[in-house]
Amino acid sequence: MLTVAIYLKFAFFLSLILLTQSRPPWSKLNQKCGYEFCPHLEPDMINVHLVSHTHNDVGWLKTYEQYYWGMKTDTQRAGVQYILNSVIPELAKDPKKRFIYVESAFFWRWWTHQDEEMQNLVKQLVNQGRLEFIGGGWSMNDEAATHYSPIVDQMSYGHRFLASTFGKCGIPRVAWQIDPFGHSREQASLFAQMYFDGLFFGRLDMYDKKQRESDKTMEMVWSGSDDLGEKSHLFTGVLPNGYNPPDGFCFDDTCSDEPIVDDPASREYNVPRKVADFIEVIRNQAAHYATNNIILTMGSDFQYQNAPIWFNNLDKLIAAMEAEKKNGLKINVFYSTPSCYLYSLYQANRTWTLKTDDFFPYGSTDHSFWGGFYTSRPAIKRYERVSNNVFQAIKQLHAASNLTDEKTFDAVDNFHRAMGILQHHDAVTGTEKQLVAFDYAYILNDAIEKSMDLMNRALQFISSKDKSSQSNSDPQYTLCLGLNISQCEVVESNDKVLVTLYNPYAHEYDFKVRIPWQESNYKVTGPNGESLNATIIPIPGFMQDFPERKSSATHELLFKATLPALGFASYFVEKVSSNKPTPKLETILPLTTSEAPITAQGKGFSASFDPSTGSIQSVSLANGKVVKLRQKYQWYAGYDTPKEPPSGAYLFRPKGPASGFPDQPTYQIFNSPDCFEVHQNISDYVSQTMRIYPDDPFIEFDFKVGPIPVADKVGKEIISLFQTDLKTNKVFYTDSNGRQMMKRVKDFRPTWKYKVIEPIAGNYYPINSRISLKDEDEDLQLVVLTDRSQGGASLNDGELEIMLHRRLLHDDSLGVDEALNEPGVDGRGLIIRGKHYVLISDIKSSNILHREKGMQLYMAPVVAFAPISSFDDYRANHKTIYSFLQRALPPNVHLLTLEHLNLNNWLVRLEHFYQSNEDPDGLSKSVRIDFRGLFNTKSVHGVKETIITATQYHSEARRLTWKTKDSQSTREIETEIGNEVHDFVVTLKPMQIRTFLLRLDD
Amino acid sequence: MLTVAIYLKFAFFLSLILLTQSRPPWSKLNQKCGYEFCPHLEPDMINVHLVSHTHNDVGWLKTYEQYYWGMKTDTQRAGVQYILNSVIPELAKDPKKRFIYVESAFFWRWWTHQDEEMQNLVKQLVNQGRLEFIGGGWSMNDEAATHYSPIVDQMSYGHRFLASTFGKCGIPRVAWQIDPFGHSREQASLFAQMYFDGLFFGRLDMYDKKQRESDKTMEMVWSGSDDLGEKSHLFTGVLPNGYNPPDGFCFDDTCSDEPIVDDPASREYNVPRKVADFIEVIRNQAAHYATNNIILTMGSDFQYQNAPIWFNNLDKLIAAMEAEKKNGLKINVFYSTPSCYLYSLYQANRTWTLKTDDFFPYGSTDHSFWGGFYTSRPAIKRYERVSNNVFQAIKQLHAASNLTDEKTFDAVDNFHRAMGILQHHDAVTGTEKQLVAFDYAYILNDAIEKSMDLMNRALQFISSKDKSSQSNSDPQYTLCLGLNISQCEVVESNDKVLVTLYNPYAHEYDFKVRIPWQESNYKVTGPNGESLNATIIPIPGFMQDFPERKSSATHELLFKATLPALGFASYFVEKVSSNKPTPKLETILPLTTSEAPITAQGKGFSASFDPSTGSIQSVSLANGKVVKLRQKYQWYAGYDTPKEPPSGAYLFRPKGPASGFPDQPTYQIFNSPDCFEVHQNISDYVSQTMRIYPDDPFIEFDFKVGPIPVADKVGKEIISLFQTDLKTNKVFYTDSNGRQMMKRVKDFRPTWKYKVIEPIAGNYYPINSRISLKDEDEDLQLVVLTDRSQGGASLNDGELEIMLHRRLLHDDSLGVDEALNEPGVDGRGLIIRGKHYVLISDIKSSNILHREKGMQLYMAPVVAFAPISSFDDYRANHKTIYSFLQRALPPNVHLLTLEHLNLNNWLVRLEHFYQSNEDPDGLSKSVRIDFRGLFNTKSVHGVKETIITATQYHSEARRLTWKTKDSQSTREIETEIGNEVHDFVVTLKPMQIRTFLLRLDD
Repeated sequence: MLTVAIYLKFAFFLSLILLTQSRPPWSKLNQKCGYEFCPHLEPDMINVHLVSHTHNDVGWLKTYEQYYWGMKTDTQRAGVQYILNSVIPELAKDPKKRFIYVESAFFWRWWTHQDEEMQNLVKQLVNQGRLEFIGGGWSMNDEAATHYSPIVDQMSYGHRFLASTFGKCGIPRVAWQIDPFGHSREQASLFAQMYFDGLFFGRLDMYDKKQRESDKTMEMVWSGSDDLGEKSHLFTGVLPNGYNPPDGFCFDDTCSDEPIVDDPASREYNVPRKVADFIEVIRNQAAHYATNNIILTMGSDFQYQNAPIWFNNLDKLIAAMEAEKKNGLKINVFYSTPSCYLYSLYQANRTWTLKTDDFFPYGSTDHSFWGGFYTSRPAIKRYERVSNNVFQAIKQLHAASNLTDEKTFDAVDNFHRAMGILQHHDAVTGTEKQLVAFDYAYILNDAIEKSMDLMNRALQFISSKDKSSQSNSDPQYTLCLGLNISQCEVVESNDKVLVTLYNPYAHEYDFKVRIPWQESNYKVTGPNGESLNATIIPIPGFMQDFPERKSSATHELLFKATLPALGFASYFVEKVSSNKPTPKLETILPLTTSEAPITAQGKGFSASFDPSTGSIQSVSLANGKVVKLRQKYQWYAGYDTPKEPPSGAYLFRPKGPASGFPDQPTYQIFNSPDCFEVHQNISDYVSQTMRIYPDDPFIEFDFKVGPIPVADKVGKEIISLFQTDLKTNKVFYTDSNGRQMMKRVKDFRPTWKYKVIEPIAGNYYPINSRISLKDEDEDLQLVVLTDRSQGGASLNDGELEIMLHRRLLHDDSLGVDEALNEPGVDGRGLIIRGKHYVLISDIKSSNILHREKGMQLYMAPVVAFAPISSFDDYRANHKTIYSFLQRALPPNVHLLTLEHLNLNNWLVRLEHFYQSNEDPDGLSKSVRIDFRGLFNTKSVHGVKETIITATQYHSEARRLTWKTKDSQSTREIETEIGNEVHDFVVTLKPMQIRTFLLRLDD
Repeated sequence: MLTVAIYLKFAFFLSLILLTQSRPPWSKLNQKCGYEFCPHLEPDMINVHLVSHTHNDVGWLKTYEQYYWGMKTDTQRAGVQYILNSVIPELAKDPKKRFIYVESAFFWRWWTHQDEEMQNLVKQLVNQGRLEFIGGGWSMNDEAATHYSPIVDQMSYGHRFLASTFGKCGIPRVAWQIDPFGHSREQASLFAQMYFDGLFFGRLDMYDKKQRESDKTMEMVWSGSDDLGEKSHLFTGVLPNGYNPPDGFCFDDTCSDEPIVDDPASREYNVPRKVADFIEVIRNQAAHYATNNIILTMGSDFQYQNAPIWFNNLDKLIAAMEAEKKNGLKINVFYSTPSCYLYSLYQANRTWTLKTDDFFPYGSTDHSFWGGFYTSRPAIKRYERVSNNVFQAIKQLHAASNLTDEKTFDAVDNFHRAMGILQHHDAVTGTEKQLVAFDYAYILNDAIEKSMDLMNRALQFISSKDKSSQSNSDPQYTLCLGLNISQCEVVESNDKVLVTLYNPYAHEYDFKVRIPWQESNYKVTGPNGESLNATIIPIPGFMQDFPERKSSATHELLFKATLPALGFASYFVEKVSSNKPTPKLETILPLTTSEAPITAQGKGFSASFDPSTGSIQSVSLANGKVVKLRQKYQWYAGYDTPKEPPSGAYLFRPKGPASGFPDQPTYQIFNSPDCFEVHQNISDYVSQTMRIYPDDPFIEFDFKVGPIPVADKVGKEIISLFQTDLKTNKVFYTDSNGRQMMKRVKDFRPTWKYKVIEPIAGNYYPINSRISLKDEDEDLQLVVLTDRSQGGASLNDGELEIMLHRRLLHDDSLGVDEALNEPGVDGRGLIIRGKHYVLISDIKSSNILHREKGMQLYMAPVVAFAPISSFDDYRANHKTIYSFLQRALPPNVHLLTLEHLNLNNWLVRLEHFYQSNEDPDGLSKSVRIDFRGLFNTKSVHGVKETIITATQYHSEARRLTWKTKDSQSTREIETEIGNEVHDFVVTLKPMQIRTFLLRLDD
């Protein structure tokens, strides 16, 4: 019921914008809620901005729910409801006090429980700048294990909630990533596109920080994208003390610092001592910052549950400092906010250095590289990616079907919230306690389940030929999320199954459908009733002992589906009990002892495999080049002295170089015209299928890892190592949140002198979608696409390694207080499945192929199964193939978002998904899209461009601009494109994302 | 400055009463602040009184100051300022909420820091019964280690503060002893005299509690005194759960119970489960209580620092229960107070059982008898007693001198506060951390030091013959608090010293003055210039290695001073450097080996000592009876398994019977006509002087114990054991807070079947002033008077043992988290000195002697020293002997209190200090005192009787009366005596204390 209320608010707000085409409520109010409320600065003094804040993890040691309500205080004294309950009255009492709130997931929860009186009070405080939303995403998302698609969603969902609740004054102006463990360049770029005036964060490499302190470059301009230029510039400040108060001045009731005792009659009177200490803190900090303003973060994790204690002591401290000021001290101390601090820096009107790389990896001590979490909890990381895939499809189906009942909006809202929670920097990162990880899985499962009704109704609505007569006999689809372990109950328990593939990617392509199957005859019928080629391939033996797996399938039925762009195609699969012989694989090679290499032909290449091990040996390209390609599995022993930082949920600290597996792999090969597979057993807990389709340029490595054995008391971290003869000269590339590629150089940092202490962990970088090597001389590129976020490196020229799974026996003392030792369903340790897609090609082809494949992987077809009795009957009443698009989008344009906001209003994000240098004369060029006639059954009646969060019209949004040493000039951010979209035609430049509100009719 | 403000308030308030002789402000206001504000009860339901409360130890793990300000949160998260800051706004927001506050020491502190707006808000809340003071003493005093004199003071001081600040509505109606470790009958009697309508407490023997639960006698009427009868009746309730919330319902932010999650949309929604649990709690509790009302204490130690959390959850719980009530549940849950609960019991109009014994000892488990604290920290216990002695003298001097400047009132207020703090049940009990014990010593020292100016000015004012010409040459007195270790700097560094003895006891008597001396000649001159007999006696050798001692004195100069009642006498002591030979002791026996007993003659008895050991053997009375009397030291090994309760600060749990000291004692005897002394060494850490004065019926045992050796890892508890041949039949007697005597029977409890599990600790009782044995057949009584509170028992007929000192190596797991291992000044372990006064006599004589001696010991002369050059000159300008009384008080009347309230108004408490049965035909009779002409230089112009706390006129005060099974009748408490004191004559009955406000002129 609460959800409904919120949905209605959103809906009301947005319909106002779109139906009336008038100015939105936030600008109507003409509120004074910018920097005008900021405290008075003293130009000749050090101005000390005290920022009262709380940092509320959306799950970590406790679940999101437990944190909200304040349960399990024996684990952590943390209850978010109490924080907001406590802070608001304090703000109401004293107009000088300020507080910021960050995580919309919690604020929304609290807000829905408040009565109107409290809501009005809070609105007043927000309008007066006394309570300010900073950051404002649904959670404070991680930047290393996240993909840009859910980042954009979760930031937008938080901002849309704030904007619809509070209007203009609720929209955050400052990004606030105080806790994430390193910072990505793509995140900076996205923040710039969210029109944040600046970003503050707390964690960066300790040597980077030292250098910046000594150079007074703790604050800078960060260029988020080479492609987007100054539009991606983001003022960025490193906070002095993480996000904690200075030593001795934590007055939260969870802290142990001395309170200010201001009664001179008391034996504990300590004002002179505390003032002297505070002046020292201020002077020390001012020495490291460029202006006469400094910021002190007066708060920390879940602080201000008892806000009066904090404020009581800060009041006394301010009063004592004020007294010193009257005595001539040139220090001005006051309650402030990050935005007011930011504005004071802006007013300083100086020139800042320009940062163009990113803040990975994060080393907090010489041996503490926070690179373990790139891979920690690989199952959750994959589940998050799958869920986002489903969610994007669900949103599109919702829009396309024009379902407008509350239940459907509830399901979408619920999914938004789930995905928002999962982006939190202790969620998808895997740095949470086990019980919290289970809860995240529950949340995702719940979101998917609650969207199934919407999916079914949408598919029915769209597919039904006679919309007036939807019947109960319509097929009831279910997803088989167990397909990765060859399990699908609906297929096993029914002989006739409708398989509908919904393609959320706005381009047509062929897709390999694989359905768990028993060794019976089959018949596959295509959307138009045509009989299709299909084959069955044995499931690898190593899948038989998968404890999660409840299936008697022994094979997978494989056929190729041709998917319409942004649409669906329905297939019909039958078990045939006839006398006809079961079609067999044309060739099955048993375990071979032949010495001649085994070869398999893919699209544009052939691969050869070592007959003694089954391992890949080389790839020959169509142009005749032969590239050596070895792939093997290895493992790191986690550093296991508990006192020194061991490898743990956060940290990667291997004891030494990786070890190989001692036994020679065993394998089986299955071949058919449709597919070549090597089933290879590396050890008793590492196995894989290598797979080549003749029409696919990628080689799939489909691995199973786990349960990692730890009976020897050694924690282990498993990698997949690719070795080539490419000349790479220490350089490799990793993507940034699935978008732009970052150049990485082994043992090197672009902005400070790097000393190699951890030769392995110090070179690990986050991979969200791909990692690559280039040999420019040979015009060769190796790309490995991943199916989830992982960590990886190139430790030797021509090599890439990717960490797949980790099981560790020591906590790394960063708060979780649990070793990363996932039990799996049977307690023996978690087993994971995963895929790498490996491409070796010339660089330009490779760029196009990996960009396309990357989109197809994260926006993969959603395969829905429903038992039906007759495909002919079904086809009589239903469309079996359909695209929402009247014409395909240009090949370099991605439909990042299609979301039904209300009635006939859609939120659409279009993305140019090439960087400028990837195909300069082709797909990297700018591209035009015409909204007119783009959609089937819907026509676009109006288009308004907004900023990426859809909270402000693009034409009205403004950002502070900052001078850099490079640019040396201040100018308004251009708005040359897309201000108003009168002619329905928009242009996209490389890497550009543009966001539109579309008004449509049926 | 704060002190001044408070003094002025007090002064203003009380001057109003006395100068105008009109009705005091509390009654003028005619406020409705009684039981009228109590919540509505449902007659057919269980009425559940939720009492939100906090228990604020006035020092325990942290000092009083540290608790107030909330320092050292790593020791305990407890800051009283925050509690009151937090609670008041919650009360202000919701008229249904109630809160009680108990400890005036903290409330006063907080109050002085509030602005007028807050003070007015609090007054309003108090007047409306929303904030209610319960208990209201300066602290929640202990009942086992305390003396009634400071108990009366500290309760009155707290109540006077509340009455003067809030008027009638501030005066507590309910006593609240939720945490003290056992409950004394005298405390009940005093509470009755404070006009409390009832008492609630939390701790009683577990078997007592079980019995009462099963009998539904958790609530009763307690008769506080056989002598005072129904006037001492006190309704008494045992709280169900100590003072804690029921399991699962502690919602403080320091607790770990689940909050109420009342959002059905939440996965953590728990209302149905919490409601079911709560109903079970209520039903279980109601089954043990007599009426359809139950009380739930919703709070605990230092809770409500974050009051909104508690109230937020209670609100939800009440709402959920209210919903069940609407569905037919016969349970009514509401915010209430102890007084409203009490009143609901009163309204039940039933008959209650009558309790006549007390609640000692307190056994919380089979092996946990809380009897260690009767003796723990013996030095602090003595220091507290000495300080009260000085304080009573200071107050009298303040009154007698008529000093009215603020500084003098400040000094008295400061002393009141210090003594109030020391009465706390973790102060004088010795159950605090070591650093807190040091702080208590500091507080006492500070109080004494800050009163020295008042003492000097008062003595000068009183003694000066020409009041108009006080000169700077007036003597500057100092006290020598080191006299117990034969140290007095002023005597050592001056040859001529004025020794003024102020006698706060309102009776004349002879007193032995002992002054540290070197072996030089001396001359002692009496008040009238007469030369006095004196002698010097060697200081025992065992005093030479006292680490505290900074003195080269080798002897004590002994002379007898004759003290005027309530007055002073000045003596002059000179070191004589003449050629006259130093008068020697007439006889000094060196170490003897003779076999004939050594005898010494006291008043009415002679004692014989064993020549081989120096130990006492027997006492021969004047009537010819010879009583065997052996005294020896023994020690208990503390139970030292940390897991099971060991002996600790609270608990006494000996491993087994006491052990003797192995070596034969050595001794020296010194004899003179004035004094007989045996200096006896028992072991290298136990020694004593046995002392007999020819004119004194008591034998003094003046012991030194410590440092107790623990190198053998065995904690030890040292006792003094007296063995006689009295036939005592398991019966012995201990005093209750220094007043009425309580009969104790070994291995027996009067009100429940007692199973002996701890044969020693289970028989230990608190001794505050005396322990005695009676042999009725032989008409013999042994009384041992102590100089401080100690624990003791009679484990065998004819025997008494008293625990002197304890040094233990394990914490007893009751919160202190430190072993009771006092370091002493040099870290080797605390050494203590102490005295027992032993009397063997016929019962009637004994009663008179021990009653008088008891008074003289706790109100001992304050001996002040000042260097002067000439006694003759001094005598020319000063009175040297003076009594404030024109005539002696009757011999059975004690001036318990003489305190200068303001201008010419005195607070006077008179006490009949005999029980009815102690001298039935003599001193136990009622006695009349006439105030007219009683005081020198002051005449009494008006007398108003008040209740004991001086907050209400006796004639106007009312208490609820309760029917008992014994009385079966309800009647108004008589006010037949002292309603108005028109004729200046008052009558005192045995054990009665009457309190008066006197208006005087010079």
